[in-house]
Amino acid sequence: MIVDQLFQAVENQGHVCVGLDTDLSYVPDELKEGYATHGESILAFNKAIIDATYDVAACYKVQVAYYEALGIEGMTAYRDTLAYIHKKKSLRICDIKRGDIQQTAAMYAKAHFEGDFEGDWVTLNAYMGVQDSLEPFLQYIQEKNKGIFVLIRTSNKGALDFQYIKDGQDRPLYEEVGRQLEALSREYIGTCGYSSIGGVVGCTNNEKGALLRNKIKHMFLLIPGYGAQGGGARDVVPYLINGNGGVVNSSRGIIQAHKSESFKHLAFDQAARMAAIKMRDEIWGALSR
Amino acid sequence: MIVDQLFQAVENQGHVCVGLDTDLSYVPDELKEGYATHGESILAFNKAIIDATYDVAACYKVQVAYYEALGIEGMTAYRDTLAYIHKKKSLRICDIKRGDIQQTAAMYAKAHFEGDFEGDWVTLNAYMGVQDSLEPFLQYIQEKNKGIFVLIRTSNKGALDFQYIKDGQDRPLYEEVGRQLEALSREYIGTCGYSSIGGVVGCTNNEKGALLRNKIKHMFLLIPGYGAQGGGARDVVPYLINGNGGVVNSSRGIIQAHKSESFKHLAFDQAARMAAIKMRDEIWGALSR
Repeated sequence: MIVDQLFQAVENQGHVCVGLDTDLSYVPDELKEGYATHGESILAFNKAIIDATYDVAACYKVQVAYYEALGIEGMTAYRDTLAYIHKKKSLRICDIKRGDIQQTAAMYAKAHFEGDFEGDWVTLNAYMGVQDSLEPFLQYIQEKNKGIFVLIRTSNKGALDFQYIKDGQDRPLYEEVGRQLEALSREYIGTCGYSSIGGVVGCTNNEKGALLRNKIKHMFLLIPGYGAQGGGARDVVPYLINGNGGVVNSSRGIIQAHKSESFKHLAFDQAARMAAIKMRDEIWGALSR
Repeated sequence: MIVDQLFQAVENQGHVCVGLDTDLSYVPDELKEGYATHGESILAFNKAIIDATYDVAACYKVQVAYYEALGIEGMTAYRDTLAYIHKKKSLRICDIKRGDIQQTAAMYAKAHFEGDFEGDWVTLNAYMGVQDSLEPFLQYIQEKNKGIFVLIRTSNKGALDFQYIKDGQDRPLYEEVGRQLEALSREYIGTCGYSSIGGVVGCTNNEKGALLRNKIKHMFLLIPGYGAQGGGARDVVPYLINGNGGVVNSSRGIIQAHKSESFKHLAFDQAARMAAIKMRDEIWGALSR
């Protein structure tokens, strides 16, 4: 099961998920000059980041929106970035947040678990329904060693608009989403005790973090909200069980580290490495307290 | 405002939105033979369908999942299909159902309202929050003549999982989504009286259709669920006001019409034309009753 691979990566290399939300403006000018297209310079940037971080990070999350925004050349860079992560024997979370039904959902599963855009995990949105949205992805979990992270509670302020609406029993929507997903996730549990049906839970609204974690205890978590979005190492602790069970994403905090005060004396790739190590050690530190 | 163009297209050509969810299996073998790649034969198929239907349909909905599933060559066919619809002076709804926040949402807006994958409308999912998910799209509505359709209540059975959950005031979630969107939509109203912030409302669960329509009365609707999904002409009537205010999507019912009993004697493009005319006239008939 793919969840066992990710669990083991966390054991060995820590919780950092490097977010390759690579905007052209992040790429140093001197790197841009060597390439004919924006897509190619973004790919070169990503490869250098991957080379500098793959042994200190659990996995990579590639945000497809940044590549779609560059059209065909962007999608080509997306394809080649995913292939490079795989070549480095690291794991690829494709942050696509797709959500559709029936034949369309099947097409999305094919698109992101096979062929040019193949990843190891994808993020999904289940607003259209748990079974309807996820069904075509389930056979890939069993037959092709793939995994999914489904949105439960996100890290932005607007999460309040719908995710926190309470039902007649005073239960917020995100909890009901979690409840339905946890039930399904139990059918896809690996030897590590977690499921290859994981969840996305932000680490920025933590009043009931431990409570929520307890309700979705078989789900491996992808935790956004660290760094630029305001979360810190202590904020992720409620979501980790015995030091594992989740990866913590940071994008700008790592791939733009060369623009920060702390690392501006370093080349962009070495700055990213130092930022990833710092984050890894901060989370380990918070867990050991 | 783009909504005025779509309103006018409905006035002149009826309510049919042709869904180009083009699976390779829909393409006749003799057409496939002339092309080197699957992407090229899908593009040729789409062009023939567009040529045969653009004067009897209001617009096209292109489901990006089918193109993503073919990787780079699929996305190239997607790009060229959108360009061809535009060349024919028809309108392009990009069925992408994206939903993300902040910089990522801005990247999706750029991706689908500019450059290779430019459309006139996009479909969006606001689970992460109305303002957060939609904000980057709003300036395109005002400055670049673009529009959005946001998921409110979908046409599948799984819609029951979350969209029908009732809050403390016995109001289903889809109604609250509609309420927040209607409020925002009033800031983007065209001369036709509808907003360029539209909604997706399926026509398959209609007990409270007229009631819902009344609560989102400024929103132009994209109505799925017709034909293969079980909806008929009478099912869309509650969502149309004075004969306008929405387009009705049919995908397989039109682009696979050559496989149906009624039209199997026709070439695939002529079968699509006849199916579109039949659907157009059925809706007109239901409205005049």
